[in-house]
Amino acid sequence: MARDARRVARQRASDPSQRLRADDDRHGADHAAGGRMNRTQVGIVGAGPAGLMLSHMLHLEGIESVIIERAGREHVQGRLRAGVLEHGTVEMLREVGLGGRIASVGLEQHAIDFRFGGESHRIDFHEATGGRSAWVYPQHEVVADLMAARLRAGAEMRFDTPVERIEGIDTARPVLHYAQDGAPRELHCDFVVGCDGFRGISRGAIPPSVLKTCDRVYPFGWLGILAEAAPSTNEVVWGCDEGGFAMQSIRSPSVTRLYLQCEPDENPDNWSDDRIWSELHQRLDVPGMPPINEGRITQKGVTAMRSFQSEPMQHGRLFLAGDAAHIVPPTGAKGLNSAMADVKVLGRALTAYYRRADEGLLARYSQTCLKRMWLVQRFSGGLCTMVHRFSGDSVFARRLKRADLDYMTGTPAGRLQFSENFTGLPVEA
Amino acid sequence: MARDARRVARQRASDPSQRLRADDDRHGADHAAGGRMNRTQVGIVGAGPAGLMLSHMLHLEGIESVIIERAGREHVQGRLRAGVLEHGTVEMLREVGLGGRIASVGLEQHAIDFRFGGESHRIDFHEATGGRSAWVYPQHEVVADLMAARLRAGAEMRFDTPVERIEGIDTARPVLHYAQDGAPRELHCDFVVGCDGFRGISRGAIPPSVLKTCDRVYPFGWLGILAEAAPSTNEVVWGCDEGGFAMQSIRSPSVTRLYLQCEPDENPDNWSDDRIWSELHQRLDVPGMPPINEGRITQKGVTAMRSFQSEPMQHGRLFLAGDAAHIVPPTGAKGLNSAMADVKVLGRALTAYYRRADEGLLARYSQTCLKRMWLVQRFSGGLCTMVHRFSGDSVFARRLKRADLDYMTGTPAGRLQFSENFTGLPVEA
Repeated sequence: MARDARRVARQRASDPSQRLRADDDRHGADHAAGGRMNRTQVGIVGAGPAGLMLSHMLHLEGIESVIIERAGREHVQGRLRAGVLEHGTVEMLREVGLGGRIASVGLEQHAIDFRFGGESHRIDFHEATGGRSAWVYPQHEVVADLMAARLRAGAEMRFDTPVERIEGIDTARPVLHYAQDGAPRELHCDFVVGCDGFRGISRGAIPPSVLKTCDRVYPFGWLGILAEAAPSTNEVVWGCDEGGFAMQSIRSPSVTRLYLQCEPDENPDNWSDDRIWSELHQRLDVPGMPPINEGRITQKGVTAMRSFQSEPMQHGRLFLAGDAAHIVPPTGAKGLNSAMADVKVLGRALTAYYRRADEGLLARYSQTCLKRMWLVQRFSGGLCTMVHRFSGDSVFARRLKRADLDYMTGTPAGRLQFSENFTGLPVEA
Repeated sequence: MARDARRVARQRASDPSQRLRADDDRHGADHAAGGRMNRTQVGIVGAGPAGLMLSHMLHLEGIESVIIERAGREHVQGRLRAGVLEHGTVEMLREVGLGGRIASVGLEQHAIDFRFGGESHRIDFHEATGGRSAWVYPQHEVVADLMAARLRAGAEMRFDTPVERIEGIDTARPVLHYAQDGAPRELHCDFVVGCDGFRGISRGAIPPSVLKTCDRVYPFGWLGILAEAAPSTNEVVWGCDEGGFAMQSIRSPSVTRLYLQCEPDENPDNWSDDRIWSELHQRLDVPGMPPINEGRITQKGVTAMRSFQSEPMQHGRLFLAGDAAHIVPPTGAKGLNSAMADVKVLGRALTAYYRRADEGLLARYSQTCLKRMWLVQRFSGGLCTMVHRFSGDSVFARRLKRADLDYMTGTPAGRLQFSENFTGLPVEA
């Protein structure tokens, strides 16, 4: 690796215009092969938030990348996912020049309102952490901001282009194989980054003898709805009712996102509007607080829930980031935020490599990410277990969950623990 | 209840010598009935630390009690149990004049040394809590101190005397039925306190329609040994090895108490001395720290492990305290300490009743104790789950437990949470 890096560093030092470029026609040998082969520094599989963010960060450091995405651009931009950004994620977006719309459209959050035992138990995480916030700002907005920035910079992104296989990750020149207009093409890279999600192909390129995965599948799902109704409060409300979990999140001053614990394979059609509102009131309303507002339901869908982790998150010149490496249940809102943490580590490591021929951060990428990620898995999985009703729970287990909620909301140490995890653990990079 | 209390308060005010006395022959009516019936203010079932401490506290407030204990005095004083006192338990013993021997013989502890992943991870709970300690001081010493104090004060304690039934807890005059020299006897009381442990009869006097219990039985036990060997460090060591839990506790500068996770129904004879030392080294030793010292094994026994909780902890004029109401696994050392917390609440409540005719604290006894006790169950059960190996654990569950250990030992919030629970949550009374 060191030779590549020193060469690049020399090139950058002598003439910035000599940076390696990814354009198909810049390399004589590729051209001679009929344009079927091309070259970049970092080949990124997947144009979700992890891939876009990494590409953007590398661009700012003068490092080239190409993104190859299976789906179409409209589809990528239309995917509705997570909606809460950690303090550190927002800082990271600001640092790369993308904090503007969050500041104008995002909703800064200082507290969560947990409801159980007929009462509201607020955790002011802003206060508990000495000033850290979370922001309601949906993932598709993050993707839109990143996509716009990448397009402005003339990034090379190929949509509707599935990567068919990844070869040579054990060599100094891994190759992405894909098809374009029916013709087989190759993208030769210094490094490949798999940002292609849980069902992507990247993870499978790590030899089975190396890759260890483990998971937990939860025996419930979330029925999520979007309603044309004003949120009943300006804080996210978690209903930790013994009958099942519910959540009121905020999409805008006139649109509410609501979730109800349901069967993992629930058919949303089994839930009439009446049944939905009745369960939401049951699980979220408490005396002395405004009841949730009803409104026209414009979307309805069921999400299954799992925890999943790959170890390691790198092999040779392949690095996994985001959902390709780990899945968390939505409790705690750590999916997008964990992807951003991975990318922060990887962006810095690639920069150290190309700038200073320093391979150390790259070599430790997996270790650095996993150390933090297991704490995130702990928080997400623990919270998911604490707030949901499991049909198999013994009476003792149910009473212990209530004690967990009492401790978390009712003691300074409990509030601090929740708050520092919810607003985001530090990212070492 | 109020009438009794006002009467007593009047008596105390007019003439301290007129306090109700429990002696058999002081009551004409009892005497007339052939001495078979006698009278006290508080009838205590069980002469363990809870019963003795309550009796001592009541005595200091001028309230009479009689303790009736199934076992013989030697047996009671010989029972080997818990060995770590919370900060608050030590304060409580000091407040009632029994802090002397703890100060001279007890070993003040400031930290626990958790060992996992081949490293030592110390939690300095003294520092984390701003100066709270724990004390290694065995339960049988607490019992000896209390017994001595009670005997000095001429307390009425009946050993080798099983209470056969408890009657009238729904009335103003509950009665303990027992046998003395083969003759049936009755002790008429204002209140009955069940301090007779998990297998005692008191809990069963609460009507089944009222009493709810729940529990968790853990799929492992502890093989405990006493060894003639100096502790390898002056701090308690918890070995949270993936192969199973182990602990090195301190009995004296030359005697070590050691525990090994084993099958719940393990036959101690299956464990040769060689096997014991080999497993202890495996689970407790880490590079850079002195290995545990071996020595002659003078005791060997297996303890099963469960969590158990009764709700409520009172009914009518019967109050449950300590193991009669709740059992915790030994991880966290909360058995004796929780009994002391119950007794503190009950002692203050009975004092308020007899001194000021205030029934409020008595009426809230169960509620007050349960609020704290469920947090203790949470801590004890959670810690027990975290540090032991469960044969049914998935890979994900094992990795999450490791993350729990990393978070608990590696972050200020994790250390604070452990520390404030380990040194003892506040007792409201």
